[in-house]
Amino acid sequence: MFESAELGHKIDKDRYDKEEPELRRALLKAQYELVKKGEFPVVILIGGVDGAGKGETLNLLNEWMDPRHIQTNAMRPIPPDDLDGRPAMWRFWRALPPKRRIAIFVGSWYSQPLISRVYGETKSAKLDQEISDILRFEKMLADEGTLLLKFWLHLSKDGQRKRFKKLAKSKKTAWRVSETDWKHLGMYKKFKSVSQHLLRETSTAEAPWLVVEGEDERYRSLTIGTTILAAIQRRLDTKSKPKSDALPVVDRASSIDSVSVLDRLDLDQKLEKDAYDDELALLQGRLNLASRNRRFEKLSVVAAFEGCDAAGKGGAIRRVTQALDARKYDVIPIAAPTDEEKARPYLWRFWRHIPQRGRLAIFDRSWYGRVLVERVEKYCGVPDWSRAYGEINDFEEQLVSNRSIVLKFWMQISKDEQLKRFEEREKTPHKQHKITDEDWRNREKWDAYNVAVCEMLDRTSTEQAPWKLIAANDKYFARLEVLRTMVEAVEAAL
Amino acid sequence: MFESAELGHKIDKDRYDKEEPELRRALLKAQYELVKKGEFPVVILIGGVDGAGKGETLNLLNEWMDPRHIQTNAMRPIPPDDLDGRPAMWRFWRALPPKRRIAIFVGSWYSQPLISRVYGETKSAKLDQEISDILRFEKMLADEGTLLLKFWLHLSKDGQRKRFKKLAKSKKTAWRVSETDWKHLGMYKKFKSVSQHLLRETSTAEAPWLVVEGEDERYRSLTIGTTILAAIQRRLDTKSKPKSDALPVVDRASSIDSVSVLDRLDLDQKLEKDAYDDELALLQGRLNLASRNRRFEKLSVVAAFEGCDAAGKGGAIRRVTQALDARKYDVIPIAAPTDEEKARPYLWRFWRHIPQRGRLAIFDRSWYGRVLVERVEKYCGVPDWSRAYGEINDFEEQLVSNRSIVLKFWMQISKDEQLKRFEEREKTPHKQHKITDEDWRNREKWDAYNVAVCEMLDRTSTEQAPWKLIAANDKYFARLEVLRTMVEAVEAAL
Repeated sequence: MFESAELGHKIDKDRYDKEEPELRRALLKAQYELVKKGEFPVVILIGGVDGAGKGETLNLLNEWMDPRHIQTNAMRPIPPDDLDGRPAMWRFWRALPPKRRIAIFVGSWYSQPLISRVYGETKSAKLDQEISDILRFEKMLADEGTLLLKFWLHLSKDGQRKRFKKLAKSKKTAWRVSETDWKHLGMYKKFKSVSQHLLRETSTAEAPWLVVEGEDERYRSLTIGTTILAAIQRRLDTKSKPKSDALPVVDRASSIDSVSVLDRLDLDQKLEKDAYDDELALLQGRLNLASRNRRFEKLSVVAAFEGCDAAGKGGAIRRVTQALDARKYDVIPIAAPTDEEKARPYLWRFWRHIPQRGRLAIFDRSWYGRVLVERVEKYCGVPDWSRAYGEINDFEEQLVSNRSIVLKFWMQISKDEQLKRFEEREKTPHKQHKITDEDWRNREKWDAYNVAVCEMLDRTSTEQAPWKLIAANDKYFARLEVLRTMVEAVEAAL
Repeated sequence: MFESAELGHKIDKDRYDKEEPELRRALLKAQYELVKKGEFPVVILIGGVDGAGKGETLNLLNEWMDPRHIQTNAMRPIPPDDLDGRPAMWRFWRALPPKRRIAIFVGSWYSQPLISRVYGETKSAKLDQEISDILRFEKMLADEGTLLLKFWLHLSKDGQRKRFKKLAKSKKTAWRVSETDWKHLGMYKKFKSVSQHLLRETSTAEAPWLVVEGEDERYRSLTIGTTILAAIQRRLDTKSKPKSDALPVVDRASSIDSVSVLDRLDLDQKLEKDAYDDELALLQGRLNLASRNRRFEKLSVVAAFEGCDAAGKGGAIRRVTQALDARKYDVIPIAAPTDEEKARPYLWRFWRHIPQRGRLAIFDRSWYGRVLVERVEKYCGVPDWSRAYGEINDFEEQLVSNRSIVLKFWMQISKDEQLKRFEEREKTPHKQHKITDEDWRNREKWDAYNVAVCEMLDRTSTEQAPWKLIAANDKYFARLEVLRTMVEAVEAAL
């Protein structure tokens, strides 16, 4: 992997002086075109051996291009504790650029896995798991349209030693070589073997690594510059692919006998008011107690409420929040995305609300919109929602393995019950705000939604984050089901 | 001030049970109307004596209204160090809700000033200064359309003691009374006198305090609920005021002899290429050195670049960034606001980019757009830009008193020089992206812009954050002026 980056590549000054101005002009031009009409963001990773010119490359790219449209993310490996209980990827998600912008990462999602493995803090099995996390993340970025370019600056061990010595000799640059750098030089072999594994496994068709010899500054700069230029130009020239109308590979939704999990749900389960009142108080008490348990400070709850229109999501959510101290929870109503959200990968707007430990985030509608409304209303293409199942499972897995309790409620009512509730809303003055033309339009697509719901339930009900189907024709019954599920999940986790 | 909140106000259960459901319905209805068509955000502060029911009130409001459209900000007084070098108000700015949403603050911009004064960490002069900061902040909120409601829950000393004893007696609630609470009870008198001063001074016409006796839960709840209801209803009923076409009180811009600071600027100051190259290297070296100084880690730099179109802002900025490690700065290009930005007070979108200590934030165009383009193009009303001078001075003062170096550059070229540059841009293929129809339209308003610029310079050039006028007909001269100003300012601050 690194052999061809130890060949002593060199560009002489004459050639550099001739090519650099032209490259620079072209890069700037491509960047302005990106800013003006690019429908994608650019993410550039600069990793590699210390002393191989990561900082210099970063600065050079900012000099060659217009730094006003570049954001620099210098991210150190940080101990997971600093994330306040959020998954490790949270800070990278937060730092993703909107379309038309370039983000350069020095230090990235590769840093922590690499360092931890080299230091022996993690085993190779853990590294392999981290690698597959990275692969899924980068595939998602690529699928969502991000142009992802990954450069690894390499030095031979001798090359690194020479570089450090040279820096250490001059008073002006000695500060740049730290004790850690010398220590890492001593661990060169280990670093090399882990990096090699890491790079090999994460060089994909969408986002291959380009290993660049770091020894000669001119060679390094021209190589990286021309690569970036070509990649941006090529993408700009590609006609943005039309929303594919391709059919999904397998049409999973309609089973031969037309029986679905939804059909099997007994919607008419009921509860009397008295029984409801008693148990409501009981369950709310338990939830309150659990949320004040000292061990709850190490957990968090991410709850997603989905369901048919008028199924009673709002009412169920309020029976939950009533039990909680308002300082501990956020309710996040999901409506149309803002323009800052629209300019980034789909899941970005949910990542921004991931709770700190000791807190609950309650989503009124959620990331499942991708495979429900966006699918049915054709707001996104078939390939987009088809891959969303995997992306969502991945998202939730990260939450769970980070001690979030992930709860997903599907609240189902019958078509008749919905009609009754719609009509009641239209008749009752203080409920009229709850019913719109859109609700009626959605109702006409009942069957299409049904298909989407069933496929969603099939494909995203995982062991760690199973769907809880709520029979919601009776509000009392439904609310207690929700509460009970939540209480039991939190108590079990304490 | 607190006398009428020690009268033993009481509401009996019958009356409460009769009035509460009606109030609740009305509140919910008002909230949905706000969500649907309110063109303003609501900010509710709940402060007061510990044990007087702040937490209970917060939870009750979340129960009465729809928690999906409420955000709760529980903000403890934190030591300024935790802000990473940003002004104390930064975290409150970040937490401001967009229009159509309600934010409830338990713990607010009053907490730290109150506590510090009671503990004797600050003198009364400092408190008075903090009070005037608060007054300006709240006036800005009100002027920008926020409905601000401030409640202070009061208990007599006896009442507080009784409350604590009662809580402490039951095993279920004992955890709610901390040692600090008992300590504060001992300091009751001091707390009372400082609060009294604080509340009196900050009860303004736009945002008066409502002191509420906390003893009786029913009285407290109904009082606060009806107050919020009435305030939201009244505001919803008020026709949103049309953009006022009123003339400014004083037309400061045109001086009798038509001589302005801009006229006095010798635009034709020049520099030869050789001299430029030499000094550029020198100044960039100094800036680089200064930015790596250990003492720089305690400072930050906020630089705003403004100027005529084609005055060379971009070029000047790049000569600055070339001198810096890209990991230390952000360049923030200011274009049209996003919809998340538009839904909040004007300065919000600049507060979100305030740098941590040890960093530089370079704004390409800035908050001065309010008194330049927004004024000239009538994007905002006369009252809006008229008060912006004060708001901006206040903003910059907060930065400066927090060890930010605030630099403001106005880059001026002559009308002839602009024409020359526009025409050159149109002729040169790789510069065509830099010239648009809008530039030509702006040019026609040269005189109107001139008036706005002069008033801006007059009213916002403060001792702590003076404007630096840059004669920019000659690019070399201009760039060095910018660099030199920045270098000298940073060196002086080290």
